[in-house]
Amino acid sequence: MGIGPGSTEQLTGRAKDAILASDIIIGNDFYLRLVEELAEGKEVIRSSMGKEVERARHCVELAREKTVCMVSGGDPGVYGMASIVLEVLAHDDSAIDYEVVPGVTAATAAASLVGSPLSGDYVTLSLSDLLTPWEVICKRMDCAFRMGVPVAVYNPKSRGRPDNLAQALAIALKYRDGRVPVAVVKNAFRDEQEVRFFTLNALFDDDSFVDMRSIVIIGGEESRIDTVGEKELMITPRGYDRKYVY
Amino acid sequence: MGIGPGSTEQLTGRAKDAILASDIIIGNDFYLRLVEELAEGKEVIRSSMGKEVERARHCVELAREKTVCMVSGGDPGVYGMASIVLEVLAHDDSAIDYEVVPGVTAATAAASLVGSPLSGDYVTLSLSDLLTPWEVICKRMDCAFRMGVPVAVYNPKSRGRPDNLAQALAIALKYRDGRVPVAVVKNAFRDEQEVRFFTLNALFDDDSFVDMRSIVIIGGEESRIDTVGEKELMITPRGYDRKYVY
Repeated sequence: MGIGPGSTEQLTGRAKDAILASDIIIGNDFYLRLVEELAEGKEVIRSSMGKEVERARHCVELAREKTVCMVSGGDPGVYGMASIVLEVLAHDDSAIDYEVVPGVTAATAAASLVGSPLSGDYVTLSLSDLLTPWEVICKRMDCAFRMGVPVAVYNPKSRGRPDNLAQALAIALKYRDGRVPVAVVKNAFRDEQEVRFFTLNALFDDDSFVDMRSIVIIGGEESRIDTVGEKELMITPRGYDRKYVY
Repeated sequence: MGIGPGSTEQLTGRAKDAILASDIIIGNDFYLRLVEELAEGKEVIRSSMGKEVERARHCVELAREKTVCMVSGGDPGVYGMASIVLEVLAHDDSAIDYEVVPGVTAATAAASLVGSPLSGDYVTLSLSDLLTPWEVICKRMDCAFRMGVPVAVYNPKSRGRPDNLAQALAIALKYRDGRVPVAVVKNAFRDEQEVRFFTLNALFDDDSFVDMRSIVIIGGEESRIDTVGEKELMITPRGYDRKYVY
């Protein structure tokens, strides 16, 4: 089940009902804390980050007897727990009933806070090389930036590889004007939410604002910064201006 | 404001509140009907498909005096109404207050109904050439399929160009084995919901099942069909099997 970006306001009705209908709630402690008011009175199993396979097995084990809700941040099907739980279920002989409950995914949640940067085609890409070799990620980035569309970057930094983002931006600069806007969203819909705009050049020069939990939206060829009143926002137009005057 | 894929169960709490807090609800009739029970007693302005620029201007016009909720399907920032409303707002002198309310986007909603096909990196792509030239779409597809990741296709067919999808699949077949799975989801979370799996080859041979409102998820190099009990599902593994035994 996906809780969306953070605040319980961004949960769907179905996600809420899934918690309420479950005997056991299991998940990473960070996400569990965001929904703990709803889980009151339930058995709650807190697991730490990086123990996804063990967590998925534990979940399937428990689901033989009880109704279990595996909590995932954003949408569970995007860098979330859905795939590993389903892999474990598929390896298992028993035919346990399941449902994947979608949520507001981190890319569009972050996008909503900066305007409309992902309005048309876009790419969702993670810079974490824990499960995908870095050379594969580089090849994907090359094709992604060549598309000319915005790229929503997850896991832009990690402890082990603090320069992943700089390498990604260098590839982007092969195909994009350095003045293209980039939005960095930290803690979308959570405490300490922070939004900042850069140009591709400026972020390449200094990306110290970006942390592990940031979503970085690198503009496409047509993305631009605009203003409504005093407020800056990032827009990727869908192309209405090619057909209409407004 | 994004209503998510369809049923009111998939609305976020914030989206519900946005309707309740508004004086006027405006949108395409198809989406308005999905939330009409919540809009009871409100002024509702129904607009027809394809009148996005007029609808956006009308919305901004009304917003000078009243609180207006522009309804969009899925997430408003992905092929939705957010960009054009913000473009009109930015062209406008007045500093009208606005909020983009994210929703469950069609790609991940469809994905949740077929397993976990978009688990890692993926591309979101529309085949509609109403606002984007077809040659640009073809160039994007070439890069997208070259990435090797799953591609979520919106607007796979249109009245004017019924063979768009066949052309897309032909490009996919340049870079993918013809046995790669493809999921077609019709009317996700709405009446007459329907899900069907194909191989790339089979859908290329006969795509008559696909209609304008379908979401087509074309698997990446590692996507596969698996089973839980009797139920087929599509999984794109995240790569845990490269590190763990399960």
